[in-house]
Amino acid sequence: MGVLKRRAFSIWTPFRRSCTAVFTTKPQSTVSSLRALCSVTESQKKEAFRQAVLNTLERRLFYIPSYKIYGGIAGLYDYGPPGCAVKANVLAFWRQHFVLEENMLEVDCPCVTPEIVLKASGHVDKFTDLMVKDEKSGTCYRADQLLKDYCKDKLEKDLNLSAEKAANLRHVLAVLDDLSAEELAAKIKEYGITAPDTRNNLSDPYPFNLMFQTSIGPSGSSPGYMRPETAQGIFVNFKELYYYNGNKLPFAAAQIGQAFRNEISPRQGLLRVREFTLAEIEHFLDPEDKSHPKFSEILNLEVLMFPREDQMSGRSARIITVGEAVSQGIVNNESLGYFIGRVYLFLTHLGIDKDRVRFRQHLVNEMAHYAADCWDAEIECSYGWIECVGIADRSAYDVRAHADKSGVPLVAYEKYPEPREVEKLVIAPSKKELGLAFKGNQKMVVEALEAMGEKEAMELKAALQAEGEAKFHVCTLDKEVIIKKDMVSISKEKKKEHQRLFTPSVIEPSFGIGRIIYCLYEHSFYTRASKDGDEQLNVFRFSPLVAPIKCTVFPLVQNQQYEEVAKKIAKSLTTVGISYKIDITGTSIGKRYARTDELGVPFAITVDSTSSVTLRERDSKQQIRVNVDEVASVVKELTDGVSKWAVIMLRYPTHSSRPSVTGDFLSYFISVKLVKLLLVEYSTLVAIPQLNDLGMTTATEDRDDVR
Amino acid sequence: MGVLKRRAFSIWTPFRRSCTAVFTTKPQSTVSSLRALCSVTESQKKEAFRQAVLNTLERRLFYIPSYKIYGGIAGLYDYGPPGCAVKANVLAFWRQHFVLEENMLEVDCPCVTPEIVLKASGHVDKFTDLMVKDEKSGTCYRADQLLKDYCKDKLEKDLNLSAEKAANLRHVLAVLDDLSAEELAAKIKEYGITAPDTRNNLSDPYPFNLMFQTSIGPSGSSPGYMRPETAQGIFVNFKELYYYNGNKLPFAAAQIGQAFRNEISPRQGLLRVREFTLAEIEHFLDPEDKSHPKFSEILNLEVLMFPREDQMSGRSARIITVGEAVSQGIVNNESLGYFIGRVYLFLTHLGIDKDRVRFRQHLVNEMAHYAADCWDAEIECSYGWIECVGIADRSAYDVRAHADKSGVPLVAYEKYPEPREVEKLVIAPSKKELGLAFKGNQKMVVEALEAMGEKEAMELKAALQAEGEAKFHVCTLDKEVIIKKDMVSISKEKKKEHQRLFTPSVIEPSFGIGRIIYCLYEHSFYTRASKDGDEQLNVFRFSPLVAPIKCTVFPLVQNQQYEEVAKKIAKSLTTVGISYKIDITGTSIGKRYARTDELGVPFAITVDSTSSVTLRERDSKQQIRVNVDEVASVVKELTDGVSKWAVIMLRYPTHSSRPSVTGDFLSYFISVKLVKLLLVEYSTLVAIPQLNDLGMTTATEDRDDVR
Repeated sequence: MGVLKRRAFSIWTPFRRSCTAVFTTKPQSTVSSLRALCSVTESQKKEAFRQAVLNTLERRLFYIPSYKIYGGIAGLYDYGPPGCAVKANVLAFWRQHFVLEENMLEVDCPCVTPEIVLKASGHVDKFTDLMVKDEKSGTCYRADQLLKDYCKDKLEKDLNLSAEKAANLRHVLAVLDDLSAEELAAKIKEYGITAPDTRNNLSDPYPFNLMFQTSIGPSGSSPGYMRPETAQGIFVNFKELYYYNGNKLPFAAAQIGQAFRNEISPRQGLLRVREFTLAEIEHFLDPEDKSHPKFSEILNLEVLMFPREDQMSGRSARIITVGEAVSQGIVNNESLGYFIGRVYLFLTHLGIDKDRVRFRQHLVNEMAHYAADCWDAEIECSYGWIECVGIADRSAYDVRAHADKSGVPLVAYEKYPEPREVEKLVIAPSKKELGLAFKGNQKMVVEALEAMGEKEAMELKAALQAEGEAKFHVCTLDKEVIIKKDMVSISKEKKKEHQRLFTPSVIEPSFGIGRIIYCLYEHSFYTRASKDGDEQLNVFRFSPLVAPIKCTVFPLVQNQQYEEVAKKIAKSLTTVGISYKIDITGTSIGKRYARTDELGVPFAITVDSTSSVTLRERDSKQQIRVNVDEVASVVKELTDGVSKWAVIMLRYPTHSSRPSVTGDFLSYFISVKLVKLLLVEYSTLVAIPQLNDLGMTTATEDRDDVR
Repeated sequence: MGVLKRRAFSIWTPFRRSCTAVFTTKPQSTVSSLRALCSVTESQKKEAFRQAVLNTLERRLFYIPSYKIYGGIAGLYDYGPPGCAVKANVLAFWRQHFVLEENMLEVDCPCVTPEIVLKASGHVDKFTDLMVKDEKSGTCYRADQLLKDYCKDKLEKDLNLSAEKAANLRHVLAVLDDLSAEELAAKIKEYGITAPDTRNNLSDPYPFNLMFQTSIGPSGSSPGYMRPETAQGIFVNFKELYYYNGNKLPFAAAQIGQAFRNEISPRQGLLRVREFTLAEIEHFLDPEDKSHPKFSEILNLEVLMFPREDQMSGRSARIITVGEAVSQGIVNNESLGYFIGRVYLFLTHLGIDKDRVRFRQHLVNEMAHYAADCWDAEIECSYGWIECVGIADRSAYDVRAHADKSGVPLVAYEKYPEPREVEKLVIAPSKKELGLAFKGNQKMVVEALEAMGEKEAMELKAALQAEGEAKFHVCTLDKEVIIKKDMVSISKEKKKEHQRLFTPSVIEPSFGIGRIIYCLYEHSFYTRASKDGDEQLNVFRFSPLVAPIKCTVFPLVQNQQYEEVAKKIAKSLTTVGISYKIDITGTSIGKRYARTDELGVPFAITVDSTSSVTLRERDSKQQIRVNVDEVASVVKELTDGVSKWAVIMLRYPTHSSRPSVTGDFLSYFISVKLVKLLLVEYSTLVAIPQLNDLGMTTATEDRDDVR
């Protein structure tokens, strides 16, 4: 991902952008409603919700501030056991949804990157933030953050603010992302902004490169960086991957891995971090053909889109099908549209609320000059709309940058079915004659002649034919020379071409895995009253796909028989590949349910007899009775998505009360029929005698009472 | 993983060790057979085999030298698509085998690590290699490598070497790992070793820290490093993880992630790299109880073991059960033995040849002083026996080091069922009297008194009672002082204790994933003659578990009907989660098989009719006919390990010739019976009419002919 502007970098600077996007992207509507947005009740509510989520996440070790016993390091977090499992599940689904389904070429490149690679991509020169330093203490701050804080604070708290001053501050917020170092310096001076902690004076803003620098090898002469994104590892391998793909376009390569950005002063907890997992796709395609073979599959998908024009004119995001967006020219091309659709399906399938994900098009001034079109998948959470996936048509910029820097041609070709006849200009300087005439300057003249464009060459040819000689400007000598007829032959020849060579374009969907996971936490979190109503209990409504643990196993009471059954079930869960947690503490069953709800475990097995057990679903709290030998495969069916809970409910008797023989017999009969239909062509009534095996004679209390 | 010696670090320095292990660990037998080992034919054979493997791996993009278009960087490699898939499969199985089956707590910590953490672990001070510099060019070399090269070269090539000189050189090789900087310097001087490329003089050896250094945050005042191992992230979280586990021991935490070592001059290709994936387990347990609840499961496992004593006395490694190894005291404890067994099962299940994996115990001088016992799982490949997994009982060293450095207590406790009465020594110095007597030295005297052991304290008490005063040595003052009776009270008191506090011990299995994968490549590689015998074809015999792609789909000839069937099958493979590669080129089917064999694809589906297809197994080259609608689920059955190929063979007609009705009917009948037995209790003959559906009427040529 090359750049000319800082903002053209992928999704980790954009968080700044999306924070300010409230101001930049909806200038009319938003600026006027700034105070409303910041109204105490609304932001307090969001803050309280976020705190509830964060408390649960930290208490249950979804994450841990890294090196906590040493006081922690800003912007570095560990995933604890459930967080780690959620992340592994999200990545596994990403692989299934993108790599496997699209037959992508996955690669795995190192984080340590030599300087030349990031010089070519533009990161060494341009991947910077503007920084100011406390002149006495040396503490560093991001210049735009200080200015933003000042403006927001004034607007919120200064009741005597004149209308003119307020408008001025709002304008600054709106253009914050576009301010140069000089403009930032001027504003900081104008407002008298000082260091927040000490009130000392600040230095002028200067660029700070956000890459972690290091040195490769012992000599100290090979500077390197920890990669700020994974994309470069794919670009430099284009030639190999193209060959691996049978020299065919389009194809996509993908990479999941760590990326590093040495943020000046990380804020916003889990959203702006110094090390994070990226999952990036580079879809290489012919710049003259950006259609997508599978576009029809997402054509009718309705997604919330926020095109550039709507942002500029103060309209809201609107629902539109991907097909319409492409055919109306809102989205630049089919392949870009295809990935917008696939990203939407990925996010919503994970559990992101479909009404709180939108695709926002970059404004013209947000995009790099070479980009054809860029869209961000933004997810709404308590911090606002957060960019979680960037989807950019980056044209041929990145591949060409590496070809130029390395001198290795990185091109694709299209073989013509029939050779095509083309007219080619042939310029043949006579080195002998030119040598005699220009001596040491011969080489420069030859190069200048060979570099002529078609028009210039044909004019020279005409002049030479008419006059026998002509004036010719040699730019490397910075003077005109006289070229004679015998010094160069210029002609047009017809040639047969068998193929077209070109630098491929790239469409790049780039996923910030940590941000997606954080938003997923917020979208999955809810509270509900405990049975006695005196407490709010936390629940994560993770789908089985995402849930860190699929199932818990509890013996109802501490007794050896039940514990053995629990262990037997645990073993069969392991065999079918279901992650579980066994809890043999004597804690009340209600408390144990509350604990697992807080981890988002979708199913709980309570061992309350030696022949059958209670299976409980987290959100509905419904409970059914299943045979000990069967329960692992039932949980497997549910977590694999083969059957929904509603279907399983039909198949087994409910637990809540002693079953009425008729009712349960009926549902049992229906379920048996369903099963049999799946297995054999005809069903019989032979199942009836097995009814006794179900052991529907155990405890009847509702187990959701907490303390 | 703390250290006092460089060698006490985990598995990435040990490669050096295992390279020299040939010399250090079997002093008698090996040194005398050194020339034999290095004989041209043997090493040439190994070299040729390695080259064949490496050529195939690089040509088929299992790996790519990183940043190849820029000339590459020593010690950095990319995994290309098949390599990346193999790695993902190995890691998925690792998670299943260790994390899931053992209910481990997996965490995911950043690579960027602040200095204090690695100061505590010992890496900042001790994680070094001795380096020499070319005095003119500045090129750096590892001192021990140069010395080793010199000795080996002399022994191999100098035919006039005296017996005495040869013995001297062999001795140097044997003790290479133990040489200090001064000893290395002396040897380099003695032998007149110069820089290999320039013959310039070399500097004296000096330590070079192998960690990639960087700086966290913009101020430059927070040094950090890229972690050299993942273990520290677990240790610093002990308190949180112990709590998460319900304050119960034993439990294990695990982490998979990148680690970084800035090697001075990496050699040996994929085995010694500057960035690599580690998978580490820290099993926390009570130092007073190192039994393992699941030890009985691996008790009778026979593994090749190479205990310390056998190495020292020149014996060979021998097969022994893990149970015997523990009961005979060869392996220190049950938990260590349990992990040896589990590691063995992991490696052999992946496809590592069971006869070429051994567990080598560390010699006493290889272990850190605090370690209770260490074993390396070494795998034999063309480079010799390579350490791929280290399994160490590291006692309480690491946890204690972080507790000391951070000041946060990192302890576990054992609650007694009944409170226990214990006699406790109570030393109460009188600060007032001591202050009057010792003024500014008071603090040192107080501390020295409090630090007394029981014996010393009781002796002092007796002396004070008898004489009224006594001499007392204060080590921090380095002198004796006179202590009077009123300056300290010493007594023994009976106290009730409800629990025992202790620092947990740690058993650490640490897996070098890249090394395991490389050895797996070598163990899986073989060649076989092409059908016409004029070429050797490469095959990787990967198990379905490991294979990068499970299945290929080929239309036999280029035709739209077959291509559509191929796409239909591809779609159903995706649905059941099987990775496949579709090849619709017009290449001969034999060539296409050869291509997929080289990628280690276990199964190939050739579309040669619209109703049924040919399914071919890679190693046996056997082919059967399966219905189009059925083939994805058959491949799924095979790759999930639910059925073996031999069983599937019974169920379907073979492809090689038109089936004789009787033979195939028989095998079909048997297979139907098997299936039915799985599904329902009784089988019928209703299947006969379906025989026609199998479409066994297509092409009969053998498809393994290559060109």
